[in-house]
Amino acid sequence: MKIVLLGSGNVATHLGRAFKMAGQTVSQVWSRNLLHAAELADTLAAEPVTDLFDLEPDADLYIISVKDEGIADLASRLKLNDKLVVHTSGTTGISALEGVSSKFGVFYPLQTFSKVKSVEFRQIPIAVEGNTPEVCALIRSIADRLSENVIELDSEQRRTLHISAVFACNFTNHLFALAKELLEEQKLDFDLLRPLIAETAEKIQMNDPASVQTGPAVRGDVSTMSAHLELLRNKPELKLIYEKLSQSIVNLHQRSVG
Amino acid sequence: MKIVLLGSGNVATHLGRAFKMAGQTVSQVWSRNLLHAAELADTLAAEPVTDLFDLEPDADLYIISVKDEGIADLASRLKLNDKLVVHTSGTTGISALEGVSSKFGVFYPLQTFSKVKSVEFRQIPIAVEGNTPEVCALIRSIADRLSENVIELDSEQRRTLHISAVFACNFTNHLFALAKELLEEQKLDFDLLRPLIAETAEKIQMNDPASVQTGPAVRGDVSTMSAHLELLRNKPELKLIYEKLSQSIVNLHQRSVG
Repeated sequence: MKIVLLGSGNVATHLGRAFKMAGQTVSQVWSRNLLHAAELADTLAAEPVTDLFDLEPDADLYIISVKDEGIADLASRLKLNDKLVVHTSGTTGISALEGVSSKFGVFYPLQTFSKVKSVEFRQIPIAVEGNTPEVCALIRSIADRLSENVIELDSEQRRTLHISAVFACNFTNHLFALAKELLEEQKLDFDLLRPLIAETAEKIQMNDPASVQTGPAVRGDVSTMSAHLELLRNKPELKLIYEKLSQSIVNLHQRSVG
Repeated sequence: MKIVLLGSGNVATHLGRAFKMAGQTVSQVWSRNLLHAAELADTLAAEPVTDLFDLEPDADLYIISVKDEGIADLASRLKLNDKLVVHTSGTTGISALEGVSSKFGVFYPLQTFSKVKSVEFRQIPIAVEGNTPEVCALIRSIADRLSENVIELDSEQRRTLHISAVFACNFTNHLFALAKELLEEQKLDFDLLRPLIAETAEKIQMNDPASVQTGPAVRGDVSTMSAHLELLRNKPELKLIYEKLSQSIVNLHQRSVG
């Protein structure tokens, strides 16, 4: 299979590597920025391209993996006739690709991709969608080559999956970063928290998160929460986050008990 | 070593088990609630006690592991002369135990303890403090039997460690729970997020969390954030959490870039 990648960010990079490792050919990498295109193309033995006019017309799959706000613009400038084209966004609907080709869809790998760390693609859920059942089946068959965990979702379900991932992944990572800042003020090492973070993630692999919630909010430990808010009195941003998340823990606890 | 446990919650339970596995004797478990005392005492081959008057006077270590707001009250009713007594709280200062004994301190294991899951104690950081250097050394020597990761912290440092753990553990677990609720509304399984959560925690074992932050906020993807907020329009609690955490990601990113 011959694949053209449009985009050079984290998702494009990891997808390119994964297809390559699965024995497929990435023939071109397009980016508005030649340096970015060249950098990724180089690792994939592909040709870097900055002009859409230079895209080869006969690839088996065109993957659009750019920022969400760039998808519509890019799509409006692409004409791929009956070639298969997908975007990789969790939030943008499938309809953004209407008019690009008669075969279009979505190929959304649900994972946090950083350039510094490679990932094991076999376990990553890939949500697929196609403009017809046949196109969906085709995209699914391609996704099956990378992952054991392919699922068909419509655009609304995929959007919910994406936002839930923002809560479960992006926001949690940010809480780790805030915790690190707090520790550093007291010259404490972030290493102290690493076993705790590992255990927190480990625990929900087999359990329902609400059922293993710990901490002052869920046990109604008002005096600890007051002490913490006092400690955060000069940090309005952290104080507000502490208050809102603690209240949300109490609310969820009441929903599940009541 | 003969140990008396005062308290029967998650921390008391896991500490009791850990001491037992390290070959120590837990002779008594005190709780205001006899059923709770009996339940834990039973698993430790200890005697359940509900009257403080029945505490044996000659144990080597008395561990107070009750809710923070209960520590001062319990301490005011205890007279242990020169016996070693510690509490296990992250937030309560060492001074709460003044007057209980001439040897007092803190023994704070930093981990999320749920009754449903056992933990490997050897890796858990234990923060210790004593009312004198000798008492601190004594408490440290006891902690060393359970963990390879013992650290001496004063009460202020320990409070910071605790609050950072609330952010990194309690709040993150709650975000997992919120994500699960979002998925369930669309009949999507929480299993979809489990690999992502595992990878998020795994990634910061070797990296600085701010350096591996992903998601719409850190890449300034305004259109995705708008779409998410639109999706949350009827969920004011989640919408506010989304806004505040996204803004906080942007702020931290600017702090670290600037």
